[in-house]
Amino acid sequence: MSATDYKFSGWAGYGPESVEGNLKFIDYEPKKFAEDDIDLKILYCGICASDTSTLSEGWGPVGDMWPQVVGHEIVGEVVRVGSETENGIKKGDIVGVGAQCDSCLKCHYCNKDQENYCSGGWTPTYNGKFSRTSQGSKTYGGYANYWRGPSHFAIPIPAGIDPAEAAPLLCGGGTVYSPLVQYGAGKQAKNVGIIGLGGLGHFGVMLATALGAEVTVISHSARKREDAEKLGAKHFLITGDDEAKAFKGHERSLDLIICTSNAPDMNMQAYLSLIRPGGNFILVGIPETGKLPDIPPTALIMGNVHVGGSLIASPQTLKEMLALVAEKKAKSWIQRWPMSKINEAIPSMVAGNARYRYVLVNEENGGKM
Amino acid sequence: MSATDYKFSGWAGYGPESVEGNLKFIDYEPKKFAEDDIDLKILYCGICASDTSTLSEGWGPVGDMWPQVVGHEIVGEVVRVGSETENGIKKGDIVGVGAQCDSCLKCHYCNKDQENYCSGGWTPTYNGKFSRTSQGSKTYGGYANYWRGPSHFAIPIPAGIDPAEAAPLLCGGGTVYSPLVQYGAGKQAKNVGIIGLGGLGHFGVMLATALGAEVTVISHSARKREDAEKLGAKHFLITGDDEAKAFKGHERSLDLIICTSNAPDMNMQAYLSLIRPGGNFILVGIPETGKLPDIPPTALIMGNVHVGGSLIASPQTLKEMLALVAEKKAKSWIQRWPMSKINEAIPSMVAGNARYRYVLVNEENGGKM
Repeated sequence: MSATDYKFSGWAGYGPESVEGNLKFIDYEPKKFAEDDIDLKILYCGICASDTSTLSEGWGPVGDMWPQVVGHEIVGEVVRVGSETENGIKKGDIVGVGAQCDSCLKCHYCNKDQENYCSGGWTPTYNGKFSRTSQGSKTYGGYANYWRGPSHFAIPIPAGIDPAEAAPLLCGGGTVYSPLVQYGAGKQAKNVGIIGLGGLGHFGVMLATALGAEVTVISHSARKREDAEKLGAKHFLITGDDEAKAFKGHERSLDLIICTSNAPDMNMQAYLSLIRPGGNFILVGIPETGKLPDIPPTALIMGNVHVGGSLIASPQTLKEMLALVAEKKAKSWIQRWPMSKINEAIPSMVAGNARYRYVLVNEENGGKM
Repeated sequence: MSATDYKFSGWAGYGPESVEGNLKFIDYEPKKFAEDDIDLKILYCGICASDTSTLSEGWGPVGDMWPQVVGHEIVGEVVRVGSETENGIKKGDIVGVGAQCDSCLKCHYCNKDQENYCSGGWTPTYNGKFSRTSQGSKTYGGYANYWRGPSHFAIPIPAGIDPAEAAPLLCGGGTVYSPLVQYGAGKQAKNVGIIGLGGLGHFGVMLATALGAEVTVISHSARKREDAEKLGAKHFLITGDDEAKAFKGHERSLDLIICTSNAPDMNMQAYLSLIRPGGNFILVGIPETGKLPDIPPTALIMGNVHVGGSLIASPQTLKEMLALVAEKKAKSWIQRWPMSKINEAIPSMVAGNARYRYVLVNEENGGKM
């Protein structure tokens, strides 16, 4: 291992007030380089709702993880490889890293391409500590100039996808794509509903459509109907304030619902009535309240429906998703922000202005606005 | 259609106090005989928890359904057939009827052997009204001497199964067998957990074992461990008052849990920790409270687990179950009560004395004690 001629530095939060636009640019020490690691010169990093929920401590205190550099939709150029680098990655390649940067790599789940459900050693790309190599080192995310971590979790970005558009696919896209393929969107699940047209929801429509499903967007108002249709949705259900009324006549019309919304007062009896027997209602976002809306057992039993959850995507699933996106020329809807303006971008993201994902551009490293 | 030389009479409840042992023997008018109907001379009828929840109005007021004759685990001899009788049924056959006695017979679900999820026209064997033929006629169950209804829902009892033991399989058995096969017990779901060793739970152990699964019984105390093992269970988890502690070291050990218990204070975080990614926690009993215990969304998302429900079994599934029971010589554990002692049997059932199903024997009709 040779020393590098670059330093690791990035935009760090020091406390929950950081989400108001108070990130500070700092130098930090990455993990020790292991032979299966790579270093990336970061070109792009998406802003994910997880970033802001972590910075604001909306999911709970992060304790000794301050200061931390968040960001887990990272695309960069490989500038260093080890002797055991995986995925055929070599210097100069453009690769992406999502929300998970390590796992035990030996359990039943890791061995069958389900590292996202690893039984021990699941390491998040930020707000975590490495346990397999460089034990105890903090993980640092992508609001930065360089990134270091296991090559197993680095996915080559196919030619034909704009690397900036690829960035938010690595967490946001994968998070909805994984359940879409698990439950057979476009195959046995021909009719797919997407609740909420935000960052995740827009990927839901785009990717379910790419998979050949007929997509229904379920939204509070008609405001985003046009966007939904441009993304590929065939139907648009407006809940207003009375879901039961809104869904009348649509009972048992969907095989799968991906729920990207976290409203604690959702009328689950009404939502579950939309699902065909054997179908699934899948949560992909963790509510800051930590609570689900009440689920009436009769709706589950009488309808043979399932409420489940899905956590990000495995490296293999991310690869398949990127291949599909390249093949179908599907486009993420992004807005680019210079990474230097991060303290404006974050509050704008929190205010709900993204249509539908913000991507930070590291212009100094060659990222393109 | 010729007039019959028998009268329909049975043990009717007149109000919620009937569950205390106040059923009265009455004559009643059955539905008009349709050409696809049969009449049965009832030999046996199981006592199901649904019967007592209905009589006590634990699931809500039954209104104009009083007086009603409950019982939906009926076995009898066919004494009348119509010109359109189905299932190859002829006079003298021994057949069984479960919790559902009619459906629309033309929707998508009826057409693919899922009458139990019929989109319209689902008729319960008691506490309901016919809508396909003899519209508006009340349904009368099996605490009676005769039963009349659609032959589509009458299942021939295979030779080799004691008809008394077959009776409780028609609701209780089918209710657990249907999700066992739906989720692949003994195939992709090798490890099956059964919560609660009561009427349904005992069938869960017996039938999951017959399907080749390795069964774990999850119970409050060690009291029923020996029974569980005799029924085929390989493992027994005692929750005591601290499920989280009890399940330590058993995380991700089960592919499927069938929950036959309705405790509103179940620690779902702990129960869901037992399930492998992709696995299912299936409710089969409707709690009288109408509420589920709190389900932590993180448990669903991090574990890729599903909470769902299943409603009784279709006629086709009941046939397959009875064929399996005959093949494996699996035995229901029943206690027989003369139907004339029903007003003792019901309170004993409510008191939780059954080990594990009570079967009423209509001795006058030839049922055997």
